Amino acid sequence: MAIDVPELVDQVLAGNRQVIARALTLVESSKPSHREKAHEMLRQLAPHTGKAIRVGISGVPGAGKSTFINKMGTKLIKEHGHQVAVLAVDPSSTRTGGSILGDRTRMGELATLDDAFIRPSPSGGHLGGVARATREAMIVMEAAGYDVVLVETVGVGQSEVAVSEMVDTFLMLAVAGTGDQLQGIKKGILELADVVAVNKADGDNAGNARVSARELSIAMKLVQADQNRRVPVLTCSSYTGDGLDDLWQAVLDHREYLESDGSLQARRLEQQREWLWAMVEDEILESLRHEPKLREVAQRIEADMSIEATSALKGAEEILQTFAQVVPDLPWAQGTMGSQG
Amino acid sequence: MAIDVPELVDQVLAGNRQVIARALTLVESSKPSHREKAHEMLRQLAPHTGKAIRVGISGVPGAGKSTFINKMGTKLIKEHGHQVAVLAVDPSSTRTGGSILGDRTRMGELATLDDAFIRPSPSGGHLGGVARATREAMIVMEAAGYDVVLVETVGVGQSEVAVSEMVDTFLMLAVAGTGDQLQGIKKGILELADVVAVNKADGDNAGNARVSARELSIAMKLVQADQNRRVPVLTCSSYTGDGLDDLWQAVLDHREYLESDGSLQARRLEQQREWLWAMVEDEILESLRHEPKLREVAQRIEADMSIEATSALKGAEEILQTFAQVVPDLPWAQGTMGSQG
Repeated sequence: MAIDVPELVDQVLAGNRQVIARALTLVESSKPSHREKAHEMLRQLAPHTGKAIRVGISGVPGAGKSTFINKMGTKLIKEHGHQVAVLAVDPSSTRTGGSILGDRTRMGELATLDDAFIRPSPSGGHLGGVARATREAMIVMEAAGYDVVLVETVGVGQSEVAVSEMVDTFLMLAVAGTGDQLQGIKKGILELADVVAVNKADGDNAGNARVSARELSIAMKLVQADQNRRVPVLTCSSYTGDGLDDLWQAVLDHREYLESDGSLQARRLEQQREWLWAMVEDEILESLRHEPKLREVAQRIEADMSIEATSALKGAEEILQTFAQVVPDLPWAQGTMGSQG
Repeated sequence: MAIDVPELVDQVLAGNRQVIARALTLVESSKPSHREKAHEMLRQLAPHTGKAIRVGISGVPGAGKSTFINKMGTKLIKEHGHQVAVLAVDPSSTRTGGSILGDRTRMGELATLDDAFIRPSPSGGHLGGVARATREAMIVMEAAGYDVVLVETVGVGQSEVAVSEMVDTFLMLAVAGTGDQLQGIKKGILELADVVAVNKADGDNAGNARVSARELSIAMKLVQADQNRRVPVLTCSSYTGDGLDDLWQAVLDHREYLESDGSLQARRLEQQREWLWAMVEDEILESLRHEPKLREVAQRIEADMSIEATSALKGAEEILQTFAQVVPDLPWAQGTMGSQG
């Protein structure tokens, strides 16, 4: 595609949905020529960002994330007048697979609203690349006027950490278990939560949910990172809508807490630092995978490889030397990634 | 320390324990001058490797890994005449922490034997670095004459995958649960297993263990990667020693299976390819973290950083350009990593 960056920027700022979709496709590409254009676009969009409420939403499969986002997103648009963008980080997803957000039907109501924009996870590949694309997608969405950005995660592994590093408030959805009060929450992830909600608190399950919330509240005191603040543990139901208003208020309270003592600024500054290094590593590793001369050398080395332990050592040395030779010709080495001066 | 590589190689081959320990410390270092020496040493040791039985041992905390390794390792030395090296991959470990293998008391008997060598996980840092050091430690141990190498993992996350990529046989330890037959086994990891054992099959627990083993055996048929082979699911007790002989036989059977159709060669060749790329990425990312000029630039950029979304973009571009400038002076760019011409 021919990419006219100024036109792209203008149309994203104007909220043109087709162009927003193209801008998201652009940031998801790892082709060097696309990366250059993406950087140029992001630099021009960046001054128009920073005002949105950024919320990460986690919970293992079965915690009801999609249904929750559908209900909460619809409420934020209809009752609070927000524009809501929904992004996702799922390194295991493929565009055609049945991954989170792939199935629009579970977000049926939200997907039909003009003030909502739902984007599935960038497909395939490693977490670093998916996280980079999602951070950049946040810039696009905020510049386009979306003032609430919800970032869904799959609820397993390192994706939770990656998402917690790009949002202001990290919301963890749990479900009341039968005998296991921590169902729906992965251990080791709990300390990332700023707000916790026990979902599916309706019908026969409502009592269980309240008990679970009480127990989780005690657990949170032990594990939470910020000991100056009590992490609220609430109950809600995406089915009846009960508790959703209180839950959103808890998100707003957390943001106010962050703003009151300057820690929102500190948190976002730290996120910029993390993003910086993520971009640097990602650009280098992408070059390593895709530079044509390097691929040629790598293919020959892999074909000649033996099971001797020296084989990998020798091969690695040759690839590293080849990499050093091609580095000066790479786009990022020449500073042509969108920097204008 | 002054490092005399030929002397190091001679003494490792002679099985000198103090020198082996120094060689392991050398491969664990990420200092560029140490990396050069390490490569040189590994190239000289490599021809003396390849004969050992390489077994990965996994299982969540509580599955009884340490006690199992103590008992099995002692048996392999006393009854089978092996020399046993025990390594570990635990990216979360710190040298002073209470991590796996840090607590020698749980491997008390094995630790006292002359034919055993126990090395805790390289401390701290990212999985890539820890995995690299462990692969290289395997070369040292095999060259030193250890003909069984057991590699323990923490039983959570990506470490399992890393270890499965460096061994011939991946052994998964489970424990019989109360009502949950998969306790001690992380889902998504099960398909890596070549042999499964339900541990702690003793006393009142023996019946449960047998039931669990039967259920696991059914589950394995669904998830196992190689559909031509039935993954054996056995029971054992590190306390009574019951089942340990059968379990070792299952490991030997798996190895014979791999040898019979050439897939041991294919597996190890694939592992060399993976190792090649792991080394390449690791060298580059280490340079990025440690090159002095780059650190100076990075410190200035980080100090000047703002919460503007452009801030990380601009910073990343400058760091990438600086990296490109320093690349020609890096050891791996000059081919001085042990390669003799």
